[in-house]
Amino acid sequence: MKQSLGAKILVGATPVWVIGTYDREGRPNLMTAAWVGVCCSDPPCIGVSLRKATYSYAAIVERRAFTVNIPSAGHVEETDYAGMVSGRDTDKWEFTGLTPARSELVDAPYVVELPLVLECRLIHTLELGLHTRFIGEIMDVKADESVLGEDGSIDIERMDSFFYIPGIRTYHRIGPFLGKAHSIGAGLRENRG
Amino acid sequence: MKQSLGAKILVGATPVWVIGTYDREGRPNLMTAAWVGVCCSDPPCIGVSLRKATYSYAAIVERRAFTVNIPSAGHVEETDYAGMVSGRDTDKWEFTGLTPARSELVDAPYVVELPLVLECRLIHTLELGLHTRFIGEIMDVKADESVLGEDGSIDIERMDSFFYIPGIRTYHRIGPFLGKAHSIGAGLRENRG
Repeated sequence: MKQSLGAKILVGATPVWVIGTYDREGRPNLMTAAWVGVCCSDPPCIGVSLRKATYSYAAIVERRAFTVNIPSAGHVEETDYAGMVSGRDTDKWEFTGLTPARSELVDAPYVVELPLVLECRLIHTLELGLHTRFIGEIMDVKADESVLGEDGSIDIERMDSFFYIPGIRTYHRIGPFLGKAHSIGAGLRENRG
Repeated sequence: MKQSLGAKILVGATPVWVIGTYDREGRPNLMTAAWVGVCCSDPPCIGVSLRKATYSYAAIVERRAFTVNIPSAGHVEETDYAGMVSGRDTDKWEFTGLTPARSELVDAPYVVELPLVLECRLIHTLELGLHTRFIGEIMDVKADESVLGEDGSIDIERMDSFFYIPGIRTYHRIGPFLGKAHSIGAGLRENRG
């Protein structure tokens, strides 16, 4: 018997991404967002939901571009901080010690110290209520060599990324390997088929 | 120095959700999706991206409703299986042993055995390319008592949910607690402020 908890955001865990933007004057900003995710494989698109009240909201509307910077656990404090204060009245770069670098593909800065960066151009804007959904086409993904495996793909252990748990508001690391996708389910077929 | 990996879906990890629908004839179906996530806090909305080729796509267009069922690691095989085959020619319920139950709030079935269920009515449809984004308003969240903590909220250890890693296509459990959100970043302020 399932228990009703009401109409709220309880979804297990969400990603935690750091969004890089330039404001109207070209000043770089960064903010942390958890209402984010992949939207489409072709063209490769990701979505980021921001409240209108955020400083980054106006920047994305103005510049029609943003970067998504995926942090490792070693930068959990900086990531959390970037979600606690507004770039309107704080220079988060100075405070966190993180460094902005200009993307050559889109009109947005990325974070030098974070290991994985997606450079996105805005292709859709959808008003939903408290949050606005920005959908960006991924123009390129750039990674630090330190998080790449021997075959050139992302090594999940080296990446050491983490999640946000809405409701209880905690961050958790990625845990142990559980199974190979599009494969472990075939065991069912063998057992029952 | 960051290395370019091209325009592709490399984002660390994504959620893995099981989507419940009724087709035109009222036959329940389920499928696993990873291009999913929270979109808005108020109204509480989540997004699910499906390819037009999926059987669930037509069902959502027809019924304008779906459920999101969030699995625990104990159902990783069933979850993977539901993403490997099409409901067009397979009864995934029979095969997995999972049981559909009719939602009283939306025109979609949920999965009895999975611990957390979001009942959603379709409020937006956005064509993006290979995938279509369905945005659903959460009408209610229902949970098994077995995943609730003493305070009535979701207990992340008991929930034992897992993630999908695009690119390498593996599932990973949630790992150790890393820090309290909207809090751990304040340490930076104390250190530098």
